[in-house]
Order: sequence, then C-alpha cells, then structure tokens
Amino acid sequence: MTVTAPAGFRAAGVAAGLKSTGAKDVALVVNDGPRFDSASVFTANRCKANPVLWSQEVVKDGTVRAVFLNSGGANCYTGPEGFQTTHAVAEEVAAKLGIGAIDVVVCSTGLIGLTNDRDQVLAGAAAAFDALDADGGDDAAHAIMTTDSVSKQVVVEGAGWRIGGMAKGAGMLAPQLATMLVVLTTDAVVPAGDLDTALRAATRVSFDRLDSDGCMSTNDTVTVLASGASGITPTPEDFTAALTQACTDLAMQLLEDAEGADHEIAITVLHAATEDEAVEVGRSVARSNLFKAAVFGNDPNWGRVLASIGTTSAQFDPADLDVAMNGVWVCKQSTPHADPATVDLKPREVSVTIDLKSGSERATVWTNDLTHAYVHENSAYSS
Amino acid sequence: MTVTAPAGFRAAGVAAGLKSTGAKDVALVVNDGPRFDSASVFTANRCKANPVLWSQEVVKDGTVRAVFLNSGGANCYTGPEGFQTTHAVAEEVAAKLGIGAIDVVVCSTGLIGLTNDRDQVLAGAAAAFDALDADGGDDAAHAIMTTDSVSKQVVVEGAGWRIGGMAKGAGMLAPQLATMLVVLTTDAVVPAGDLDTALRAATRVSFDRLDSDGCMSTNDTVTVLASGASGITPTPEDFTAALTQACTDLAMQLLEDAEGADHEIAITVLHAATEDEAVEVGRSVARSNLFKAAVFGNDPNWGRVLASIGTTSAQFDPADLDVAMNGVWVCKQSTPHADPATVDLKPREVSVTIDLKSGSERATVWTNDLTHAYVHENSAYSS
Repeated sequence: MTVTAPAGFRAAGVAAGLKSTGAKDVALVVNDGPRFDSASVFTANRCKANPVLWSQEVVKDGTVRAVFLNSGGANCYTGPEGFQTTHAVAEEVAAKLGIGAIDVVVCSTGLIGLTNDRDQVLAGAAAAFDALDADGGDDAAHAIMTTDSVSKQVVVEGAGWRIGGMAKGAGMLAPQLATMLVVLTTDAVVPAGDLDTALRAATRVSFDRLDSDGCMSTNDTVTVLASGASGITPTPEDFTAALTQACTDLAMQLLEDAEGADHEIAITVLHAATEDEAVEVGRSVARSNLFKAAVFGNDPNWGRVLASIGTTSAQFDPADLDVAMNGVWVCKQSTPHADPATVDLKPREVSVTIDLKSGSERATVWTNDLTHAYVHENSAYSS
Repeated sequence: MTVTAPAGFRAAGVAAGLKSTGAKDVALVVNDGPRFDSASVFTANRCKANPVLWSQEVVKDGTVRAVFLNSGGANCYTGPEGFQTTHAVAEEVAAKLGIGAIDVVVCSTGLIGLTNDRDQVLAGAAAAFDALDADGGDDAAHAIMTTDSVSKQVVVEGAGWRIGGMAKGAGMLAPQLATMLVVLTTDAVVPAGDLDTALRAATRVSFDRLDSDGCMSTNDTVTVLASGASGITPTPEDFTAALTQACTDLAMQLLEDAEGADHEIAITVLHAATEDEAVEVGRSVARSNLFKAAVFGNDPNWGRVLASIGTTSAQFDPADLDVAMNGVWVCKQSTPHADPATVDLKPREVSVTIDLKSGSERATVWTNDLTHAYVHENSAYSS
C-alpha cells in the first residue's frame, strides 16, 4: 500500500515524542531512483508555515530525493527559530542519506504557533532514517495523522507502473492549490516538467474542489516523486488520468474523515457559463453555515442554497434556478417544486444539483455538514 | 420607544395567523406627515425576495408613506403568485389609508420558499390598520420577530427632533448594504436626497460591519421615514451622526441576540492601507469557523486569526503581524508573544485587535462565536 507501493521508494514512521500521546509523529519518504523528478503545489494562504517557505525553494529545480514530515506541531508563526529547525532537519536527513539538504522537502502539521523542540525533531529524523523500509509506507501514513481518525492511503495501477499516495487532513480543510500534507510516489518515468503539468491538472479537480470548513491551511503541501524504477514512460494522458484518480481518491478519504462530519455533500453545478463560475457557485454553497447545519438536521432547505448562489457573481437568472437534493428537484424556476419531505437526507452521502441554465460548463465541489461534533472538536483542539 | 417616538408616526403589531404560535406577525408603520421623505437600502444578494423586488420600485421617488411588515414567511422564491401577494397587500394598505400603493414599502421575513395565504396577509393588513396607534411602536417591533429572543428598538434624541427605530434579525446575518428588516423614523425635516446620503453613511459603518454567520439574507431592507413634524431642520452632520448612532445601537442589539451565540466579538483592524482592506481582513476572521469555535471554547487561538488574514488580498507583511485578544498581545511579528493563558475569554464581550502595519486606516467588524446552539437552532429551524 501507499507511498512504498511503487518501486524505488523506502519510507518510515516513528515516534519522536512530538505528540504527547506517544504516537508516531515523524515520517520519512526516500526516493532511491534511478530518477529524482518531482513536482509540488503549496497552499495559497499568504501566511505560510516555515516548512512551506523552505520547501518552495527545494522544489524549484524539479529534483527532490526525500520528504521529511512531522505531526505534533505545524511550525507556523514560530519565527526565525522555527525556520532554523526546518533547515536543520533537512540537513540532518541529507547527511544521513549522503545527499544535499536542498533536495529534502519538509512538511509539518499540528498546532499553529507551537515551537517544537529542535533536538527532538532531529532525533526523530535519525530514528526514521534507521527505520527506512521498502514496506514502510503504512507507518509513514500513520505518523502524519493529527485529528485524523484513520490514515489515508491509495495505490493506482498503471501498465507496468504504479502511483502510491498518502495524505493527512481533517480540519482547516479548504485547500487552494494544495491540501494538507500529501505525498505521492510513482515508479513511472516522468520528467519533472511533465510531472508538474500532471500534478496541477490532478489537484485542480480533486483537492482544489474540496471545501470542508472554508478555512485554508498555512501548511498545505502536495509533493509527487517519480523514481523511474519501472523503466516505463506512460503517455502524459495516461499518467495524468492515473494521478487524478489517486488525488481524487485521497480527497474523498479526507472528506469522509473530516472533523465531526455526519454527511459528505457533493454539490454539482450544471450549465454554468464557465467552469470557474461553476466552482464559485459550488463553493458559496459549501461555505454556507446555514445550509450545512440544515443538512446535519436532515433538512432539505433549498432556500439556503439559493440564498448562497445569490452572493456570487456567476451568470444566472435569479428567477430561473433549479435545485435538486438527492435527485429530487425541490426547486424549479426558483419556486417550490417537488415536496422536500420526499428527500431522505439520513444517509451520509448527499448530492445537491444546481442548474444555472447559463452555459455548458460544470463542476462538483465537496463539503461536509456543520455538526455539534465539529464545534466541539474545534473548540477543544488546543486544550 | 421605537418607531413611534418621533412625532408624526403611528404603528401597530397584530396576530394574523401567519405564525403557527399565534404570536404577533403583522406590523404597520405609517407616516402622517406633513412630509413623506424616505430612503432605503436593500440586500446585495442577487436572489431577492418578492417584497424587496416590489419595494425597490416604491422607494425610487424618495416618497414613502407606510411600511407593511410580516413575519411567518419571507415570501422569497415563491414565484409570480408571491409577488402578487406583496402587491395585493400594498394595495390593501393604500386603500385603507387613502394613498397610492406605490408609496407603501413591504417587508417580509421567515422561511424562504414558504407561500403565505394571501387572504390571511390581507386580513392582517386590515387589522393592523384598525390598530394603528401613536404608541404602537412596541407592538410593531414584536410583530416582526422570528427567531429573535427580544425585540430591538432604539430612540436617539436630537435638538428638538428624534430618531426612532426597530429591527429584527438573528440569523442569516451578514448584511451588505442593509440588514434584516429595519424601520427608522424621524420627525426632523430631512429632504429625501439628504436622507439617502445619511442612511448610506450610517449603514456603511454599522449594519455593513456586522457578520454574524457569513450568510447574506434575501430580504434585508432598511427604510428611514422622515415626517418633518418637528419643523426643525438639523445640519446634515448632526443628523448623520444621530442616524449612525441609532443604526449602530440596533446592530449591536442584533449581534447580542444572534442565534445560539455565547460571545459578541469585535474585530478591530489597525494600520490598514485602506478602510476597505481593514474591513476585508476583519470579515475574513469573522467568517472563520475554526476561530469562532475556538472562542466558543474560550481558547485564544491566534494562529487561526493569522491563517484567516492570510486568505485576503490586503497589504501586509506575513512575517510582521501583531494580534491582541482582550488587550493581551498574544502575537507580535507573527510569532508567539504574551502567554495566551493570560487571556480570559469567559466574558461575552471579546475583542480581537490586528495590527497590519501598512497604513493609517482602521475598521471594526462584529461577529459571534460558533456554538452547539447555533448548529442546533439552524438544523431544526424549519422542522
């Protein structure tokens, strides 16, 4: 499973004491080659964590040989000392592997504003190096969990090559350009430029369409590493399709494990003038606390859907909107249609379909409901 | 108190059966002159309710003689039949008063997508006309309540003239250009053009700075009526100041009664490059569910404040932001400063101060925390 499924990769997950629970909190993923192509996308949040500031420089030349990840602290808004910790752990990993620190991506997750003990982090890196294993992907996937209740892993099979992946994320889950921490690996031969094109295409329709709670993280990082160990060069179309499948699978795992959620909600916008407008409309509904609280209460409150659509700049006629919930068209031409009582919202999976009647583009945005448990988890997180 | 405090106004609030509880649900405010100047602002939501579509036409000539209001149904997304109900009730009120329907503003509030019985609404208008009284303001203020737990009323004294006001609103409370239903009255002599200028100035820094739950209503209407009955013409500055005081007072009453809220939160942004950027930053924090849930849990989680600021396009250096909570600077230069444990968030009133260090403008945005009770009320609202 996971990041060690493709040939040419080793990984590890160990407990370094960053989590007070004693659970695994440091992960390492190493590309043993023969190629070291990579691509990454990072959070669009302008307040970026120290590991993001570091890793943005690392990925510029398209070569990455290892990814170090820790949970138990986001190393965000921790100032120059925090940046030095990121730099030091990249140096430590590089020294152990006999490579340059500038080829080591660093990712951190956990509380913002918390300064991790540098010696503890460095000791964790050394322990992870010692534990590196061709079957270590599962340990690594567990070590990056924070409020996640399950680890998120994926394997997609190509023709003689594979893609593996792991992700973490359960809150502050409204990525733009990236989401949470995600490491993807492949043994296909994919030059860095093609890898970048494929990754941006894949994240645009997967992680970028996920908006669990409207809150954009400071640490979001998605990195893909290509070892070329299979010796096979897939077509760009085949590889992009497989990478999109892997990213979508991980995004759905994030959605299903979102903090406190009772429902997974897919909001599909049809007949938009542009794809961007379809996404804008979907996201406006995904960010309506009133709509999300209604779904929690199994209430097919389509009025709140229309009220959200009305806040966007998308093209549509306010008097001619259709809305379906779980396939029942409860609103046609902006007036009541089928009886909402026939909509059963008890199952976890909910679909909302909006027809803008303004063009031929479409998009789906995924979100969760707003629950007592969400409020509870996020009011008690740091205590 | 309230809209009948200034000379020249009568009002009423009666039960017409629109609310299943039997509570008052129809209000009428009548300007008896001698002048009939008016100004209004309406929701910026593009999906507007039928009474808003009607009233936008009514107010164009600056003359309004009566405002009819009902709770128990928003008359929104109810199609042509709903619009005809709005028109019919304006005609009914006009016939009773011996005026033209085009001088009658109509406001409705309650569930979206619910069609009220037209005969019930018309009978309510007739009953309200019969109940009109120079002391009827309090009844009117109660008749427009929905999930409000208390009525909202205000009186501001000028030099020989007064402003009175009433408001309703407890959810879907993120007005832009107006909020919920608000009727303001004055016996000052203020020509319609000056009234419009004063109203826009007053709402811009009061209702427009309130963002309780990020959800913009379809029915928001603020109307001010000037009877001139005092015979006194205040300076524009004096009148605008008094009107701003009345609007701010009502906005704070809305804030304090917001659905399920445990805290009132004032987010003040200092040293912004422009006032608009200060509002943008304040609103981004006001819309962070994670920040709002943290306040509910009395957790001074300033990391979530910075993560929200980072989503805006305002001018600032991400490495040089200061944040105070209840006067304690928990973050300086984007790093931890005073111990957050010294911040006591138990009192209802919470202040957040953000220093952008990028200019000389400032603004305050008001919001509430995100609570179990908010989720509960809004998941059960229509059931």
